[in-house]
Amino acid sequence: MEFSMMASHARGKGTKPDAVFAVLKRANDAMAKYGKEKVVNATIGAIYDDDGKFVALSSVSEYYRKMADEEMMSYAPIAGIPEFLQAAIDYAFQGNQPENTYTAAVATPGGTGGIRHAFYNYLEQGDKALIPDWFWGPYKTIADEHLRGVETYKMFDEDYNFTLEDVKVKTGELLAAQDNVVVVFNTPGHNPTGYSMTDENWSEILEFFKTQVSDKQKKITVVVDMAYIDFVGSSQKTRNFMKLFGGLPENILITLAFSMSKSFTSYGMRSGALIAVSSSAEVVREFANGCQFSSRGVWSNGTRACQRLLADMMKDPQLKAKMDKEREQYSSLILKRADIFIKEAQEVGLKMLPYHGGFFITVPAADPKATAEKLEADNIFVVPLKKGIRFAVCALPTQQMSGLAAKTKAAL
Amino acid sequence: MEFSMMASHARGKGTKPDAVFAVLKRANDAMAKYGKEKVVNATIGAIYDDDGKFVALSSVSEYYRKMADEEMMSYAPIAGIPEFLQAAIDYAFQGNQPENTYTAAVATPGGTGGIRHAFYNYLEQGDKALIPDWFWGPYKTIADEHLRGVETYKMFDEDYNFTLEDVKVKTGELLAAQDNVVVVFNTPGHNPTGYSMTDENWSEILEFFKTQVSDKQKKITVVVDMAYIDFVGSSQKTRNFMKLFGGLPENILITLAFSMSKSFTSYGMRSGALIAVSSSAEVVREFANGCQFSSRGVWSNGTRACQRLLADMMKDPQLKAKMDKEREQYSSLILKRADIFIKEAQEVGLKMLPYHGGFFITVPAADPKATAEKLEADNIFVVPLKKGIRFAVCALPTQQMSGLAAKTKAAL
Repeated sequence: MEFSMMASHARGKGTKPDAVFAVLKRANDAMAKYGKEKVVNATIGAIYDDDGKFVALSSVSEYYRKMADEEMMSYAPIAGIPEFLQAAIDYAFQGNQPENTYTAAVATPGGTGGIRHAFYNYLEQGDKALIPDWFWGPYKTIADEHLRGVETYKMFDEDYNFTLEDVKVKTGELLAAQDNVVVVFNTPGHNPTGYSMTDENWSEILEFFKTQVSDKQKKITVVVDMAYIDFVGSSQKTRNFMKLFGGLPENILITLAFSMSKSFTSYGMRSGALIAVSSSAEVVREFANGCQFSSRGVWSNGTRACQRLLADMMKDPQLKAKMDKEREQYSSLILKRADIFIKEAQEVGLKMLPYHGGFFITVPAADPKATAEKLEADNIFVVPLKKGIRFAVCALPTQQMSGLAAKTKAAL
Repeated sequence: MEFSMMASHARGKGTKPDAVFAVLKRANDAMAKYGKEKVVNATIGAIYDDDGKFVALSSVSEYYRKMADEEMMSYAPIAGIPEFLQAAIDYAFQGNQPENTYTAAVATPGGTGGIRHAFYNYLEQGDKALIPDWFWGPYKTIADEHLRGVETYKMFDEDYNFTLEDVKVKTGELLAAQDNVVVVFNTPGHNPTGYSMTDENWSEILEFFKTQVSDKQKKITVVVDMAYIDFVGSSQKTRNFMKLFGGLPENILITLAFSMSKSFTSYGMRSGALIAVSSSAEVVREFANGCQFSSRGVWSNGTRACQRLLADMMKDPQLKAKMDKEREQYSSLILKRADIFIKEAQEVGLKMLPYHGGFFITVPAADPKATAEKLEADNIFVVPLKKGIRFAVCALPTQQMSGLAAKTKAAL
């Protein structure tokens, strides 16, 4: 073997090139060569307006600009500014916190940091996290980095209808093999499909989970990756499912990975929180202590400016209304773009995975790389996944949506 | 045993209260009760001016305020903006990069993130990192979080002179027990003592390390925690030791934990980089790949605004000169405050650990908690360490320095 400085578990990491980055580079090259309007760049996971410009909520941007130096540049406490932690909980639930539950939050760099804390603290080394078969790649990276594995559950049946069958089967299998199971649901507005679990989906799976943990040694931690929740519909409707997180036994822990990246167009500021919901005060206390320790032992503390912004916003209904309104405009814009694609897909008979909101639309493909290459020949840049191709409707100008479905159908 | 949701390795974490936080709270309570000028708060690890106000370099603050939305709020690449990575290397060395070495950098949240990557990737699970006996507490937290341990080396002999004897002994012992050894030097301007290793210290220890790795299975990774390097003296003199990192065998890897927290008063913005220096291109490539993977698997990416600032500054000599000048004023202010304490300590015969720069001064104490309590009775708030008490001269108004040494002597 070649010489390596790294410890045995770390060798060979990161040698696979990043797929999204490579496509993005080719898209940028094409734009430089042919001009911006000639290229459909459906790879970027951030909001761009119809002029192809990066979108920052102006109310958010302005708030950062005028914030006191101390709030922007001094340290936040390890767990997060206390008002931020409360604000993160309040913003996540927006009135839908289940009765008779305890909550706690710990600041994290975006949603990633929260998922890291959940995978690391709630799984033994060698255990597997249960994630959807259509998944955000970093779930696997987070598991790999921490010597955990992943098992996937089928999200859709053969007709592309959402199904809980496989989550149930896989949860049972994992619980037979390991005491701690972490199950990830990326909803509403799932990345990459845009599917949103219904309240009925939630009731059904929570009831099932309850049947699986009569042995107190067996523990299920649910991670709700809610990164796209504010780009699906009204905050009341999209958050209603959270009320169902009450009345669970102490060995079912719900965690919400809250991220400011999309909701506050603060992707590069790195802020979010992992929020615990439990019927047990002790489980929540253990979560707060353990995750705070983890933060100190990994990144120290979170970006203070974002914490201050969220804390201040939750105390200022006018400011919140302003930010909500601005965000809703872009949320509507994304849904409008998606609608064009969905309608045309129906017209041309293009099958797609059920989209309810969020940044991405996905079309299943037998050979995603080949399909992506054909589209690239037409200056349409998409991200090929394992079983489909992903369109970032968050970043695609509305005027570029029309015709995409037909071209995709032709490329398949 | 009580019920726990967490995996076995994570149980019981974070139940010990944070010592610094508790003192800080008492100091704040005292200030509210007696007035700011009546209280000496020597606990805060950030620069405050002589009016007791948080210091932000105005040139840095202004740059954040006027930065384009996209630079402030959009994602940076996982490893960091390429110009930032080069800027971090250039800023760290400022012309002192050793000849015939390869370098690479990966963006991290402050220095903490870099130390995390080094401990995790360059030690096997269960291995120990070698850190000074006077140490920044989180070194141990970082090791604990990742199921590594720490061994400490004595920094000073009985007369409080710096010694390399124990580093050598402990390095030999650890290399006998494990293949990978990570040794941390927090220099120049060591936290908590203010000691700066001389070029002779560095030559001596590097020569020793070379004698320890003739067996290629044995590997030494040096972490230079350079958080306080810009608060010691002229950038040329303080960085000269870096030239000595050339000509090392491939199984000695040097890493620099560069942090923007202090040098750019951007503590709460969370930016820095871990920089690798090696005679082997392959070792540096492995570092870049492995650490980028780690970043993706822990926090995704770094704060873009800070990366943009550093990248732009290194391309703009005028902007750099402006920031350097502003920083030097505060660096001088801190050294001036320390000088008052040092002079008075000599006058009253108070022993202290050798201070050359940085944010903290440390006085050895047989019973640090008792001494700290006595000082608190006099409204002087310090952080008790294992073998001494720490004064944050970075935060103490100059007019409060006089008399502190005598009061400390009396409290011992």
